[in-house]
Amino acid sequence: MLELSEIYRAAHVLKSVARHTDLIASPKINPLGQIYLKPENLQYTGSFKLRGAYYMISQLTDEEKAKGVIACSAGNHAQGVALGATRNGIKSLICLPAGAPISKVEATKGYGAEVCLVPGVYDDAYKKALELQAKCGYTLVHPFDHPQVIAGQGTIGLEILEDMPDVDAVVVPIGGGGLISGVAFAIKSLNPSVKIYGVQAEGAPSMVKSIENGHILRLSDVSTIADGIAVKEPGVNTFDLCQRYVDEVVTVSEDEIAAAILALIEQQKLVAEGAGAVSVAAAMFNKIPIEGKKVVCVVSGGNIDVNFLNRVITRGLTKSGRNCSFTIKLYDKPGQLSAVCSIIARLGGNIISVNHERTNAGTHITGCTIRVTLETRNVDHIATILAGLTDAGYEVID
Amino acid sequence: MLELSEIYRAAHVLKSVARHTDLIASPKINPLGQIYLKPENLQYTGSFKLRGAYYMISQLTDEEKAKGVIACSAGNHAQGVALGATRNGIKSLICLPAGAPISKVEATKGYGAEVCLVPGVYDDAYKKALELQAKCGYTLVHPFDHPQVIAGQGTIGLEILEDMPDVDAVVVPIGGGGLISGVAFAIKSLNPSVKIYGVQAEGAPSMVKSIENGHILRLSDVSTIADGIAVKEPGVNTFDLCQRYVDEVVTVSEDEIAAAILALIEQQKLVAEGAGAVSVAAAMFNKIPIEGKKVVCVVSGGNIDVNFLNRVITRGLTKSGRNCSFTIKLYDKPGQLSAVCSIIARLGGNIISVNHERTNAGTHITGCTIRVTLETRNVDHIATILAGLTDAGYEVID
Repeated sequence: MLELSEIYRAAHVLKSVARHTDLIASPKINPLGQIYLKPENLQYTGSFKLRGAYYMISQLTDEEKAKGVIACSAGNHAQGVALGATRNGIKSLICLPAGAPISKVEATKGYGAEVCLVPGVYDDAYKKALELQAKCGYTLVHPFDHPQVIAGQGTIGLEILEDMPDVDAVVVPIGGGGLISGVAFAIKSLNPSVKIYGVQAEGAPSMVKSIENGHILRLSDVSTIADGIAVKEPGVNTFDLCQRYVDEVVTVSEDEIAAAILALIEQQKLVAEGAGAVSVAAAMFNKIPIEGKKVVCVVSGGNIDVNFLNRVITRGLTKSGRNCSFTIKLYDKPGQLSAVCSIIARLGGNIISVNHERTNAGTHITGCTIRVTLETRNVDHIATILAGLTDAGYEVID
Repeated sequence: MLELSEIYRAAHVLKSVARHTDLIASPKINPLGQIYLKPENLQYTGSFKLRGAYYMISQLTDEEKAKGVIACSAGNHAQGVALGATRNGIKSLICLPAGAPISKVEATKGYGAEVCLVPGVYDDAYKKALELQAKCGYTLVHPFDHPQVIAGQGTIGLEILEDMPDVDAVVVPIGGGGLISGVAFAIKSLNPSVKIYGVQAEGAPSMVKSIENGHILRLSDVSTIADGIAVKEPGVNTFDLCQRYVDEVVTVSEDEIAAAILALIEQQKLVAEGAGAVSVAAAMFNKIPIEGKKVVCVVSGGNIDVNFLNRVITRGLTKSGRNCSFTIKLYDKPGQLSAVCSIIARLGGNIISVNHERTNAGTHITGCTIRVTLETRNVDHIATILAGLTDAGYEVID
């Protein structure tokens, strides 16, 4: 089983390989407490996964190293194993489902792995990895349930205590549970009074449910924008360690995750992926007791697709009133569009797009509608613009 | 005039106030050299400006401190002075043009400043600040041309040499020139063999033109997405220091700045503003000699409006083929839209929006057009989708 000395050994091995990411004060996230971030999104490969993968690989025998390692992942684990193997000077083969995003495939190759695209979904790729492992003698690097992988992730706990010996609580995302198991074990071994909170997405609460039930449960389906922690069932080791060392596991909603991603961008200039932002979401939305406490939120990764990031930002802007769309009914005669646009401009709205439509079934035969999208300052500003249009005799719908 | 000892004094004063931001390896920015970032976007207030403002304010006499400070800015300098004054325990008044973004006004107030909104543009706000200074005896904190402000910014140079004694070149954004003057003076004083490169936006090349001409030039107009360095004329001190200590000043285009912002998000998980990203743009697009060199790019700030960030991301995605829009001509009969959508789906395009329009003047009486916007993988993927539609008999326009 895991021992503290192994986490220290991992820290020693990782010294020249992983960045000791420094804590970043983040006072605006929630002024009730003193919030700090442990930005593992700034770790090499963009997530903490390098730590566990590198450490486990470094401990293989020469014979095992000669045969190489294999892993199955379409995400951060793939990149962690790829770079971990390359830095150890050995070969890695990563099985990915064939539909995996090109950017992830390229990143994995970029870190020196050979990539095997398997038709089907994750489970098919995993089966293929086991097949190849048996056939060729590769060592499988488990994404979370191997004691050495857990020890590697635990180095984050040592770094937190080194940089902030008087920390009151540490908040950690949970997918399979490898990260929090290592962090909780390291911190509780050194200072049992530090609280350890785990956070899952509402749509993927496998650890929450397993702990509630007292044994490992497998969820039939998981769905969340935090794809890095969309895991159906915890590991045997991680479940055991979480039961013993984690004080509480809470969940956050999809909107809370999106708001946390946006807050990290605006307030901290950091890009986090959904899985990386759940810890911040828990602190922002008071899912855990933080009043007057020194709290470190582990931001576990930042590998978010930019198309998706764009959508998250747009959603966050709309929710905070800095972006809005509405439809206006008009009589279809010249000058109407211009009149509407000038009212909006006078009131400080910045038009992004206009869609002028004359043929909606719902409109009067001489009528038409325009749909406008604006950049606005806040909810009050939107109300001012809508009032200005209504006062001028225009009917605004939806 | 500036002395090295003053920069060391500033470093001592700033020890408990400013973050010593650590260098971040950034190998993908340009594989020809070894690129590192000095992420001052992670500095308190989101930019380096805190350093100079705090240090200058800390050196005021008790009498001056009792009267408070004044500054004129709608940007990073406002926030730097506000927090700098508050941390020194004194009063600050910031004059802003009345049209300044609400978010910047709120941020400035949030750091403890009183805000004076002046009708008109920046020059009106600056005149008001001088008026109030004369009337009330406030000390004006200049955004870049005061020796103590320059000394404060110079602490970044000391930190770079401390963390990487064998650095070959340092790349620094230039607006008024306060940052590069301090950094260049500090570094050249300690190690004259380190190259110092300045970077300006093509649309605001005031230092470039002034150096070319051998005396300070005032540009009549500046325009760039890098609003933090849209400065019409360098200072007397900064111009002199740049002439003496900066090896070369180059410019980057608006598209290069946008590409650098996107690269920092995707590769480094860091949010930079336009002004902060010009140094990275210069390294990315080989504006300076970096082959085989250890190069530090100062990312000076991250205070970018998220609405604007969204536009930069979209532009970057479109340029790299991960987002595209086109219009398809159809006969207006049932099933056409569905047929088109199924072709796109089969080829792996992810439809974001569809605009189905039956009344364009340009279309045949029985025809219509649809405009679709897609998420795509790359330029080749777009070509595949367009070919698929053409092969199925659809006419794709623009």
